[in-house]
Amino acid sequence: MGKLLIVGTVAFDEIETPFGKTDKILGGAATFIGLAASQFNVESGIVSIVGDDLPQEYLDLLSNKNIDLSGLEIVKGGKTFYWKGKYHNDLNSRDTLITDLNTLADFNPVVPANFTDADVVMLGNLHPMVQMSVINQMTTRPKLIVLDTMNFWMDNALDDLLEVIKHIDVLTINDEEARQLTNEYSLVKAAAKIQTMGPKFVVIKKGEHGALLFHNENIFFAPALPLEEVFDPTGAGDTFAGGFAGYLAATDNITFENMKKAVIHGSNLASFSVERFGTERMVNLQRDEVNKRLHQFKALTQYEIELK
Amino acid sequence: MGKLLIVGTVAFDEIETPFGKTDKILGGAATFIGLAASQFNVESGIVSIVGDDLPQEYLDLLSNKNIDLSGLEIVKGGKTFYWKGKYHNDLNSRDTLITDLNTLADFNPVVPANFTDADVVMLGNLHPMVQMSVINQMTTRPKLIVLDTMNFWMDNALDDLLEVIKHIDVLTINDEEARQLTNEYSLVKAAAKIQTMGPKFVVIKKGEHGALLFHNENIFFAPALPLEEVFDPTGAGDTFAGGFAGYLAATDNITFENMKKAVIHGSNLASFSVERFGTERMVNLQRDEVNKRLHQFKALTQYEIELK
Repeated sequence: MGKLLIVGTVAFDEIETPFGKTDKILGGAATFIGLAASQFNVESGIVSIVGDDLPQEYLDLLSNKNIDLSGLEIVKGGKTFYWKGKYHNDLNSRDTLITDLNTLADFNPVVPANFTDADVVMLGNLHPMVQMSVINQMTTRPKLIVLDTMNFWMDNALDDLLEVIKHIDVLTINDEEARQLTNEYSLVKAAAKIQTMGPKFVVIKKGEHGALLFHNENIFFAPALPLEEVFDPTGAGDTFAGGFAGYLAATDNITFENMKKAVIHGSNLASFSVERFGTERMVNLQRDEVNKRLHQFKALTQYEIELK
Repeated sequence: MGKLLIVGTVAFDEIETPFGKTDKILGGAATFIGLAASQFNVESGIVSIVGDDLPQEYLDLLSNKNIDLSGLEIVKGGKTFYWKGKYHNDLNSRDTLITDLNTLADFNPVVPANFTDADVVMLGNLHPMVQMSVINQMTTRPKLIVLDTMNFWMDNALDDLLEVIKHIDVLTINDEEARQLTNEYSLVKAAAKIQTMGPKFVVIKKGEHGALLFHNENIFFAPALPLEEVFDPTGAGDTFAGGFAGYLAATDNITFENMKKAVIHGSNLASFSVERFGTERMVNLQRDEVNKRLHQFKALTQYEIELK
């Protein structure tokens, strides 16, 4: 069993989709990453910050998944990061209606002593200087550092972002962001350029169109499972990342061959996440459901063909 | 060796992409379908119409690929169908600048006697009544009838389209068109609805995002090969269809398992088509290049994973 350190937001999300809307519910990158990783035999811990307005039941829900919360700072009298968004009819795009950083504005992450030797570090989307601070606190170089980011940091903290990605092994990023970061339209060229910036592996997330894993000349692709209904895409990317990092930590194998499997496991878990609002599906997800859907996943792309 | 009847346009295309522009060059659905199918051991023939302005070298080029042109009507003094289009910077969308139907406006297809017993009929994008006329001329029911269409016919000849698709086995269509035809956003639901309209198999083409094959509860997905450069997407969908139909005709096996391979072969061939303007790449494509790229294709999606 490997040790996985997860850094990211634990948040209130308020979501509207064409199918309905929620009140403030549990969200945040670290939450989705942790829930996905809990499907594997990992010892995982979250480093994050919340206010004392976050219901205890949300913390219990994470603890009950064996996620160590000793790195979760709870600010007395503080308010938890809050995001409100509305998805468009195609669910492929959304408007952010409210972003209240609250306690996140002054987040100085502290890695608990029992996680400074984590095997895998999964840095969820946060200010790149926060991500860098976590890397600097590791007493032994993790076997794998995975970093997720978004266009906001390219627009507002590009130098910091370029610095932190020098120190990581895998960058996960969506297709438009890969293009923005590299000024290359072709994702093949974009991934090649990113590999010159630090990470030896690049995962480009294409939402409903799947995910690509790049390493040197190797490319691997996993589709998203075609679903009858996508209910709420919130957290799908983080669920993917959590499944990816969780599987790698659990198997303690960071070869390209094993990363292919990690991409499949991440995609498989993300296919559940979007079936309900917020974390609902992931909280109740059973391993036999996960295993069953992996069969569907395999049938979706595997074939026998004679090569010459 | 199976017999493949191809129905579709043979045309002049004039193309502008961000990478350059062409004069009037050889194009048309039947042309691309025929070139792709010629990669397999099929006896193929084209039913189409052109004017006598089409250079003999274009006809020779098709004949030299062993494509029977006895069903190609050459109208004395007539002009060949001409399409001019300009692609946007992302190559995913284009503007049609000129469409001159010319001889195509009065096309009454006549299936040559030696092709009325074809094993596979590939009906390229044309007026659905033209497609229906071809089906009605077959003296024996083909083992497989594949039909490609587009939104133009949904807008302008929906009743005729709905009639002809009652008589076919496979509908190939792009994602937006599948949604338009069914009023379903989910491609899973759209494909299910199309299967109630006639075809037992549905192929949804997603361009750079690959293609999905649906049959009852089964779904198979083939990605498009991620390329460093996409030069000209013209004809990629027809090349895919030609590879799909050509492989099925050559192997004389229309099981779902074999259709999966046909989707892979179609996707593989389409990855070449987009590398040059028009038909240039397909005309000169060697079988050893095709076989070599199949290895890349397989590496892109195939993995070993333990199922429980």
